[in-house]
Amino acid sequence: MFSFEIIQQSSATHARAGVMQTAHGPVETPVFMPVGTLGSVKSVTPEELAACGTQIILGNTYHLYLRPGREVIDRFHGLHRFMNWRSPILTDSGGFQVFSLAKLARITAEGVSFQSHIDGSSHLLSPEKAIEIQGWLNADIMMCLDQCTAYPASYDGARQAAEITLEWARRCHAAWKSSGNGHQALFGIVQGGMHPELRRTSAECLAELDFSGYALGGLSVGEPLDRMLNTAAAALPLLPAGKPKYIMGVGRPEDLIDLVCLGADMFDCVLPTRNARNGQLFTARGVITITHAEYRQDPDPPDRACTCYTCRNYSLAYLRHLFLSRELLAYRLNTIHNLHYFVNFVKRIREAILNGEFEIFKKRFYENREI
Amino acid sequence: MFSFEIIQQSSATHARAGVMQTAHGPVETPVFMPVGTLGSVKSVTPEELAACGTQIILGNTYHLYLRPGREVIDRFHGLHRFMNWRSPILTDSGGFQVFSLAKLARITAEGVSFQSHIDGSSHLLSPEKAIEIQGWLNADIMMCLDQCTAYPASYDGARQAAEITLEWARRCHAAWKSSGNGHQALFGIVQGGMHPELRRTSAECLAELDFSGYALGGLSVGEPLDRMLNTAAAALPLLPAGKPKYIMGVGRPEDLIDLVCLGADMFDCVLPTRNARNGQLFTARGVITITHAEYRQDPDPPDRACTCYTCRNYSLAYLRHLFLSRELLAYRLNTIHNLHYFVNFVKRIREAILNGEFEIFKKRFYENREI
Repeated sequence: MFSFEIIQQSSATHARAGVMQTAHGPVETPVFMPVGTLGSVKSVTPEELAACGTQIILGNTYHLYLRPGREVIDRFHGLHRFMNWRSPILTDSGGFQVFSLAKLARITAEGVSFQSHIDGSSHLLSPEKAIEIQGWLNADIMMCLDQCTAYPASYDGARQAAEITLEWARRCHAAWKSSGNGHQALFGIVQGGMHPELRRTSAECLAELDFSGYALGGLSVGEPLDRMLNTAAAALPLLPAGKPKYIMGVGRPEDLIDLVCLGADMFDCVLPTRNARNGQLFTARGVITITHAEYRQDPDPPDRACTCYTCRNYSLAYLRHLFLSRELLAYRLNTIHNLHYFVNFVKRIREAILNGEFEIFKKRFYENREI
Repeated sequence: MFSFEIIQQSSATHARAGVMQTAHGPVETPVFMPVGTLGSVKSVTPEELAACGTQIILGNTYHLYLRPGREVIDRFHGLHRFMNWRSPILTDSGGFQVFSLAKLARITAEGVSFQSHIDGSSHLLSPEKAIEIQGWLNADIMMCLDQCTAYPASYDGARQAAEITLEWARRCHAAWKSSGNGHQALFGIVQGGMHPELRRTSAECLAELDFSGYALGGLSVGEPLDRMLNTAAAALPLLPAGKPKYIMGVGRPEDLIDLVCLGADMFDCVLPTRNARNGQLFTARGVITITHAEYRQDPDPPDRACTCYTCRNYSLAYLRHLFLSRELLAYRLNTIHNLHYFVNFVKRIREAILNGEFEIFKKRFYENREI
């Protein structure tokens, strides 16, 4: 059921525009995917997501497995109806959170055992279990269980994690094939820290398995920008050209431009939502810190050219007042603006690729920066 | 510019249905007014308020005077444009908050001096100043500065507060008349604790001044229900019959029914919004506590007959999950439902009065209670 078609390939770079078909409809790429950790993109409704141009959102397997859990989700035949989002959903595998959030994560032959960060209860996440959970979540795109390495990581540490990730990818692939969940896509994940040769090996081995798409995990974990780009540049060309390529957890608008140049098609990041709740607004001029005194009486919206609900209806002065007063509406209005910015930023990258104007787009992006 | 017309008077009780005309449009009474303390009804947008059937909201003078303050509000020619709510606004006088929230409140000949609860800065709120602030807030309905007595209060304490309130009412009235703010209405406030004779005196003296409407303050401050109703029953008949009568800060649905019976036209209360944020949902069956385990897998909305956005789109199971996960969306979805319930509850009271079926409405209300 899942398919991917490249519509336009940029001549000067590896940038490309395409369309994925999923069980819940099409997704035009390059695409930015807002993060809905617990079955809610924090502070906004599905209608508001759609109004921002959102095509697909993320759900977090680790979180949803622990809370609300399978019994509840089963009553709704998956995450879509539970949260009232009828468009595509991608779920991560839970690997990242098990190693970063849970307590006492320990790798065993079967998978990884851990204790819930909520109530300390013991659980085991195996490749097969990750596929099973994402099965009952009914994700349109599932991710393989992986082990993400922290930064910096030794060569040996990164190699070990990449090897475990590869083994788990093979087991996820087998579990997927035997599950009969043909309408759900499965992506493999490249690991290997910031070591290009490990990344290359990881990518080559994964490419031998017929995944629906491929992702780079373990980026944007504290490394300098050039190391991130070098690492991505090492792995991306070795992944099957005709499959969607997803950079997990990245990043700033400028990072998205650079990664699209390297051939990336999909992105997710908490930056627009989390920074919104911290009072930071992304605009063409740069990032606005809403608490700054200069906005105290400013009757202008965050971005005059922006067509989001927030910019059409509210001033910087009001947004500043709401944020300083800790009004709940502040977090929502900021989130709507930032999501609109990110989703449409990547949408405009796509249009630029389609029109053969990606280089111009990139040049203008930097010219517009003031803040 | 302000006017009030009674359209229907109930035969069995003092209940009545009417229409107020304000500078920002009509308000049909009886009416429930959501509270927007800091220029935002917590967690919801103006569009969501309107979708709940909201005709008029409250703003809090004390809060808005301190933050964002006059300079900011002046840039927007008042509160309406600042917060993007183009329908009527009623502002309280700030008296209640000065005595309950501010530090070192002290009554002087001029008014009441106090220190801001935000930064400790010193301020003076006089009757004239209360009118001035509500002037630049551009409230459609302004309230006189009053001194609310705590419960229980001695006869002498309540008498003193009622006398000060009456003196301040006269000064507010004079300031209003000389301000030239003819498009803004001004309501007088009856005080007198739970002492019916003090309430009667307060009401009679206020009635001699030609206010746009009249309010009962200092109710629902911890007194038993019968004392509240006795107190309201003592004062309401002595207020001019042709003027709107507003019960401040009340209350539960059952209280609204009783007070409408006594002739009340307007209500405000934080109950629907605050309790929403505490996980309590008002329904025809009674109050739902969303954390209860019985709702864990419940696919039904809070109220099957309810037409609010929340009930049309979400299940009790999802609302419970959001609330337990402390997701921001929980507070909004609960607030939308509760506001829809309160606003439409009073709207249905109005329809029942118009159809001569208020007694039947009251009977059915109690019959439907299950929780």
